[in-house]
Amino acid sequence: MMQQEEAVMLESYLDNVRENAPLVHNITNYVTANDVANAVLAVGASPIMSDEPEEAADITQICDGLNINIGTLHQQSIRSMHLAGKRAMELGHALLLDPVGAGASKLRTETAAALIEKLHFTAIRGNISEIKALCLGSTTTKGVDADAADAVTEANLADMIVFAKTCAKSCGSVIAITGAIDLVADADACYVIRNGRKEMSTITGTGCQLSGVMTAFLAANPGHALAAAAAAAAAMGLAGEIAMGYMTEGDGNATYRNRIIDALYHMTAERLNRGERIEIR
Amino acid sequence: MMQQEEAVMLESYLDNVRENAPLVHNITNYVTANDVANAVLAVGASPIMSDEPEEAADITQICDGLNINIGTLHQQSIRSMHLAGKRAMELGHALLLDPVGAGASKLRTETAAALIEKLHFTAIRGNISEIKALCLGSTTTKGVDADAADAVTEANLADMIVFAKTCAKSCGSVIAITGAIDLVADADACYVIRNGRKEMSTITGTGCQLSGVMTAFLAANPGHALAAAAAAAAAMGLAGEIAMGYMTEGDGNATYRNRIIDALYHMTAERLNRGERIEIR
Amino acid sequence: MMQQEEAVMLESYLDNVRENAPLVHNITNYVTANDVANAVLAVGASPIMSDEPEEAADITQICDGLNINIGTLHQQSIRSMHLAGKRAMELGHALLLDPVGAGASKLRTETAAALIEKLHFTAIRGNISEIKALCLGSTTTKGVDADAADAVTEANLADMIVFAKTCAKSCGSVIAITGAIDLVADADACYVIRNGRKEMSTITGTGCQLSGVMTAFLAANPGHALAAAAAAAAAMGLAGEIAMGYMTEGDGNATYRNRIIDALYHMTAERLNRGERIEIR
Repeated sequence: MMQQEEAVMLESYLDNVRENAPLVHNITNYVTANDVANAVLAVGASPIMSDEPEEAADITQICDGLNINIGTLHQQSIRSMHLAGKRAMELGHALLLDPVGAGASKLRTETAAALIEKLHFTAIRGNISEIKALCLGSTTTKGVDADAADAVTEANLADMIVFAKTCAKSCGSVIAITGAIDLVADADACYVIRNGRKEMSTITGTGCQLSGVMTAFLAANPGHALAAAAAAAAAMGLAGEIAMGYMTEGDGNATYRNRIIDALYHMTAERLNRGERIEIR
Repeated sequence: MMQQEEAVMLESYLDNVRENAPLVHNITNYVTANDVANAVLAVGASPIMSDEPEEAADITQICDGLNINIGTLHQQSIRSMHLAGKRAMELGHALLLDPVGAGASKLRTETAAALIEKLHFTAIRGNISEIKALCLGSTTTKGVDADAADAVTEANLADMIVFAKTCAKSCGSVIAITGAIDLVADADACYVIRNGRKEMSTITGTGCQLSGVMTAFLAANPGHALAAAAAAAAAMGLAGEIAMGYMTEGDGNATYRNRIIDALYHMTAERLNRGERIEIR
Repeated sequence: MMQQEEAVMLESYLDNVRENAPLVHNITNYVTANDVANAVLAVGASPIMSDEPEEAADITQICDGLNINIGTLHQQSIRSMHLAGKRAMELGHALLLDPVGAGASKLRTETAAALIEKLHFTAIRGNISEIKALCLGSTTTKGVDADAADAVTEANLADMIVFAKTCAKSCGSVIAITGAIDLVADADACYVIRNGRKEMSTITGTGCQLSGVMTAFLAANPGHALAAAAAAAAAMGLAGEIAMGYMTEGDGNATYRNRIIDALYHMTAERLNRGERIEIR
């Protein structure tokens, strides 16, 4: 059920990233920071990482967007998230939260909740267990991975769309729930994206990479948060599909990791337009 | 001198990892954290990294095993190691120590010694110089690499097996000394593993990766620490051999890094059974 | 305008790295630490990372060179930079500063300035915007990337050489300004290096990698800082060219990252001698 008009719109969001080359400040975990940086570069934006409170707001000041990822958080980085987040809001920058592992520890759940309370995020991107932990207070997350029982499926799709929209309304943010089926919703509309491959979950950090890339899309497309976030999710999923086409005998999750970033590097508006599987509900 | 009965047993330890998909908490260095996560995923387990004292025990609580790696340690992460380690012991979790760089600084040597004194590790995995630093108080380590003069060779094998068993007895842990020849011992028996390739030492973090993978094997095979640790070491060594078979002209240590994780991803009980070169002494 | 005599000299600097296998202490950012370690290993040296003040000087003590990189700096790592830097000076070790993001925040600019004031660096390596921030007090840097308006070009080359020499004279250090054209200067002479590919800027951390590699070259070639630094820059640039020759359809910046390190791994004095494009001004 491809919607032609929207599809045509989505391609322009990628072009805007490549044209504007936004600078993205990432306060992010050390596990996937390198891949996030290369993914952000792959779509034509520039990354900078900093989590020291004394410079966090200064770094945000020179950037166009801020990606806050709470994986491997610590007391200093939490302070930096608040300081940089406040500055980003004052400047009207794109501001994204990736609540890695919300539900896995009290500290992560409370940190994400406090950030949502104090800041106004343009978008919040997580797996379904993380978003449920934030919006429903559930704690079914399996570490940093979604619990299989939580998964968005064709069977529960209608209910999950309502959940995503409700969550978006209560937070005032675009909510991006990514997994086998991605939902990207605001209070009124929900993009359902069926790009991607299940093997993406065998790589650490594809979600973190998407959060960095999505922040770049938000920063390069001010005023179009919902569609820009959906375009980023479609681009990442499509990159996973294209990358699989380059896998040969013996290739596993490490090579797949590289090939996904490579596919982002070669992603064009035309490819995105041709390959995206999106409907609006 | 392959021992058929044990060989058949070892293959089941890998199957148990893929079937149980244990969640492994890693308090580990930022140099190799990404590779550790992808290696743990490659064998079918799930990684989570956290080194913040306020959440360390909570994270361990939801996991099945804890991998403590003292590379790039800092004051906060040392506190987390003790807090999470204590909780892991209370819960009967698999608990592994990787004493990266023990012998290279007073802080590392003392931190490893204090952890061994306070906690009871299921297994301790390091290179020969690190294990000597812990058990003999020597400081011949060359940074994070073993000193060539310390190497386990066919010539000193009998003595090194005695050393490994003595060390295992005094620590009450399985001792895994990895290098050109791997020794995995408890007080009574020592697996001698001749898998692996010398080129693995040209990549940063193959030891760290093995520690993450070994923790997954220990967590998925409770009550079989010695054989599970040996199976993990054989799997990693064999992955290094298989990976070398995929190297083509121009490929170097960066590509080899990816290919080893890829080989872990495709490792099966049948391959492990066929390729492992293990004897028990 | 290849200068044959110098070209012959440069090849010996790589041989010395492979022969002496210096141990390099890196106080560096978590974004690119893994790539730095693999790049240092690729040229035949050994890396160790540590940024904890309690062990920083001890770690430096057992090493041959110290690479201080201020990316993702924090209060503790800044203390470690001073402690380890002081010890490295006392021991006469090679000491390199990579002022990542100088000009991007007050903290980074001031940290770099304080390090230069307190320590005597063998070499300082950065992009042109970072070096201008340090030597001219300008703040045109685009995050961690150079501002295009600052670029060293054939048109402004004569002026930039004067700038590099002046900067080297005032710091008493070799100044390495890397970009499309690399300048490696002391007060009296400037190597102009035209190796490299523009696509290297689509990968995070090629500069960080070069800083680690350059520290290894400096450590293995005491008393020849200028030529050793130039040899390292030429080797990295040439690796970027060789790596490009192995790129096939679908390969992007993630694969290119691996191929550059692979090319360093296979770099020989003979290849360097044949491929380097260097003149002395």
